[in-house]
Amino acid sequence: MNGADVLIRALADAGVEVCFANPGTSEMQLVAAIDGEPRMRAILGLFEGVVTGAADGYGRMADKPALTLLHLGPGFGNGSANLHNAKRAQSPVLNMIGDHATYHRQYDAPLTSDIEGFAAPVSDWLGTSDSSPQLAEPGIAAWHAETVYPGQIASFIAPADHAWSDTTPSSPQAQPSSAPRASDQAVRDAAAALEQGSNTALFLGGRALRADALWQAGRIAAATGARLISETFCARMQRGIGRVPVERLPYFGEQAAEFLKDIDTLVIVGSKAPVSFFAYPGKPSFLAPEQAQLHTLADVRTDAEDALQRLAAAVNAPEQPAVLQTAAQHDLEPGPMNMFELGKVIANHLPDQAIVSDEGATNGMGAFVLTGYAAPHDWLMLTGGAIGQGLPLAIGAAVACPDRKVIALQADGSAMYTVQALWTMVREQLDITVVLLNNSSYAILNIEMERVGVEQPTEKAKSLLDLGNPTIDWVSIAKGMGMTAARAETVAEYDSLFSAAMAAKGPSLIEVILPGYEGSAP
Amino acid sequence: MNGADVLIRALADAGVEVCFANPGTSEMQLVAAIDGEPRMRAILGLFEGVVTGAADGYGRMADKPALTLLHLGPGFGNGSANLHNAKRAQSPVLNMIGDHATYHRQYDAPLTSDIEGFAAPVSDWLGTSDSSPQLAEPGIAAWHAETVYPGQIASFIAPADHAWSDTTPSSPQAQPSSAPRASDQAVRDAAAALEQGSNTALFLGGRALRADALWQAGRIAAATGARLISETFCARMQRGIGRVPVERLPYFGEQAAEFLKDIDTLVIVGSKAPVSFFAYPGKPSFLAPEQAQLHTLADVRTDAEDALQRLAAAVNAPEQPAVLQTAAQHDLEPGPMNMFELGKVIANHLPDQAIVSDEGATNGMGAFVLTGYAAPHDWLMLTGGAIGQGLPLAIGAAVACPDRKVIALQADGSAMYTVQALWTMVREQLDITVVLLNNSSYAILNIEMERVGVEQPTEKAKSLLDLGNPTIDWVSIAKGMGMTAARAETVAEYDSLFSAAMAAKGPSLIEVILPGYEGSAP
Repeated sequence: MNGADVLIRALADAGVEVCFANPGTSEMQLVAAIDGEPRMRAILGLFEGVVTGAADGYGRMADKPALTLLHLGPGFGNGSANLHNAKRAQSPVLNMIGDHATYHRQYDAPLTSDIEGFAAPVSDWLGTSDSSPQLAEPGIAAWHAETVYPGQIASFIAPADHAWSDTTPSSPQAQPSSAPRASDQAVRDAAAALEQGSNTALFLGGRALRADALWQAGRIAAATGARLISETFCARMQRGIGRVPVERLPYFGEQAAEFLKDIDTLVIVGSKAPVSFFAYPGKPSFLAPEQAQLHTLADVRTDAEDALQRLAAAVNAPEQPAVLQTAAQHDLEPGPMNMFELGKVIANHLPDQAIVSDEGATNGMGAFVLTGYAAPHDWLMLTGGAIGQGLPLAIGAAVACPDRKVIALQADGSAMYTVQALWTMVREQLDITVVLLNNSSYAILNIEMERVGVEQPTEKAKSLLDLGNPTIDWVSIAKGMGMTAARAETVAEYDSLFSAAMAAKGPSLIEVILPGYEGSAP
Repeated sequence: MNGADVLIRALADAGVEVCFANPGTSEMQLVAAIDGEPRMRAILGLFEGVVTGAADGYGRMADKPALTLLHLGPGFGNGSANLHNAKRAQSPVLNMIGDHATYHRQYDAPLTSDIEGFAAPVSDWLGTSDSSPQLAEPGIAAWHAETVYPGQIASFIAPADHAWSDTTPSSPQAQPSSAPRASDQAVRDAAAALEQGSNTALFLGGRALRADALWQAGRIAAATGARLISETFCARMQRGIGRVPVERLPYFGEQAAEFLKDIDTLVIVGSKAPVSFFAYPGKPSFLAPEQAQLHTLADVRTDAEDALQRLAAAVNAPEQPAVLQTAAQHDLEPGPMNMFELGKVIANHLPDQAIVSDEGATNGMGAFVLTGYAAPHDWLMLTGGAIGQGLPLAIGAAVACPDRKVIALQADGSAMYTVQALWTMVREQLDITVVLLNNSSYAILNIEMERVGVEQPTEKAKSLLDLGNPTIDWVSIAKGMGMTAARAETVAEYDSLFSAAMAAKGPSLIEVILPGYEGSAP
């Protein structure tokens, strides 16, 4: 066996089942080793941003890592933005980065680069193989690193000569790390704070937004009257009928500050204190009101469900939450599409246990609010602000959960970043419905331009924010990638297309024409 | 004036005329400042790899930098692969990276990242604004850095508060650096080596491949009998009828070693000693034969034309090269397309002063060889091996040279990496003909898999190398981006489409179906 074979066998032994890949010449032995490992599925992405975003989506839904296979420094660089998002989501991701043979590096060939430099900014853990040919050692060390609760980005470099050299089979012990628990003092302090405060809230993020953890939060709310508030952008929220609903912190800083202004006690669970996404002249970065006392019950790396369960006991919470989400159906207003009708249609037809990958940007908000009343589902968000996450994330979620319907609620500008994802959805015949929100614009930037104080921009500035001229025809792009696609300009058309997609299996795209759209349908 | 206004004015004063951009919220003041600067053109790319690759193409053709505008660390990360290529090309590129307001960084908002970490691996120079609000200082320092001969990647970070704060107008002095000259000793040594050797060659790269420098090399060849050999992948080669032809070093290491095996004297100009692109088990990394004496007349950062001119004088070269490229027309073989017929058609119709952006990969070689006999033109190559360069590079070349026809000779797998480039070509109505080579495959990897010693890969391994299932329909993708497109399956169809595109102005795409293609045209 060569180093690559031993490595891939050890990772399969540790439970790694999927490799999202875009390999090059220096990774051919790794490809051959995956080829020879029946326990590992190989999925090609036509751009590394697809590969890493898919690994993020897989990690969020499987709570264990997919392997990525990336081609040297620039290949990693192409995947770095979605790894930034994955790192912000605390997803478990295991990156395997090919490199030149160790003796070849000194020649500074065209693809030689500072791979560690590329990898460091978006890796929680970074290792390299320094002793030929025991590639399994850094591989399993990285596997251990990604198990740090709730997940980490662990990257290791696999030089080509370590992959191709013969070696002794070995399978290092793979023992996942356990989640640190909140201290008894932190639980007591949080309980006391909730009992003393008059306007209290739990600020929930990360694993605190899973259904079981939210159930505990709902019990605490029932006992103490605390509001339940979630981070604006969270990795995965379990919600819908029968689950404990939470209020979502608004995106714009001044709205968020207004939203929080009466709170005197904020208990943080699976998150950190709320801050503004961007800075704006004369507006605050830190969003909690001055008078509020902040208590961290559990930071992002502390077991959130355990902490909430113990806090519920400490406040003598009832067995059941007082408030559980009820159902609602929404009557449609016929006519051209807008974000509210979009949301109603999705909420009305959302299948039980659906997964929504939300990169809907300005037009996604209606769907988020209205699906609160829909069947139980998981909602995945853009955690790091680096656009181009949504379509790859949907791939990973669909691979992790082949029996669940995945909906990619996707803004046009962000979709274009990793448009290659459509192809992988078709190749793997994933059960994903892409709802492509076409408003011909980076609409959020038109709002932000005004908000940061830029007055009267001319056509030149606006041209950097709009996606018209030429109008993007998403139906043609999807067809070019082999995907079934159709366009909806009215509520009735959209209702018909979306309900049909929910009833069918397999990949398809619905282009939804929204206000702001410039151009005429072909 | 705010910091952004002063910065952009200073860069315009220094001669920067174009900004390729994909901005976000933290760059809105920079957008407004560009908006207010009539001397600077703003061009939107729908992905940062398009932005940086376009800046590379502009730098190669204009010999001065374009500005890029990138959104924090992940935005830079998306552009890093093409900056790796640009760095390998020694292109002048000026990256302006937006950042959060300085006081906002402490809050670790979702888009906060180690921007310096992202930028360092692909920047020759990296600076940041540390004293509010004199943004013009790091901007002009970066401008200076990119002027280091023949060009450097200079990146600077522009925090949002430094951009929006009022400041005193200033315009730091912008004085480009001058090219270092080869020492007299290096010229004498090279002359002596060429006179003593019996199998001599000049190994030419970088600026030594411009027409004027090649003219001097041709004079030296006439005097000494030296072969003229170019790097395999060079930034820009001026070639065609009436120019001095060079032999191109083969890509595969063993072919390159065979090609060089009789040489006893290698004089390096604008390059470094030849090495293998990748390592392979049991094959050499260093390609010059053991017996060869290597002399560096001018490394990549030494004035190549000056060095060649002085060497020509030192060897008493005649006024004229002995060999200049002659013309040829190529008779077509009717039938299905292949790489040789592809090359003949391009060579037969190539307009005078055309620019070819070559990311044709396995199918580009025929065109390269045959266009040697075509009208004078510039040939731009993939310098750093990070695929996805070709389409963005064509954009930059077309912006730098609006009166010249640009041909993007583009392999399918590489095209998909930065497919968003098609949209910018249409928006800016650039005179680019994309020749999209569709063989449904990363064909080079099928060859490489065998070369690195992997025997009998199964369908799983092959699935990571092929682009069939689903077949990509490039005509539909191009139409989705608003681009005129057509498909050629036969030589006659291709000849007709390509000659029509050469006679017209503006962007278009020709999809060429080549051996290996899987699927049926829709």
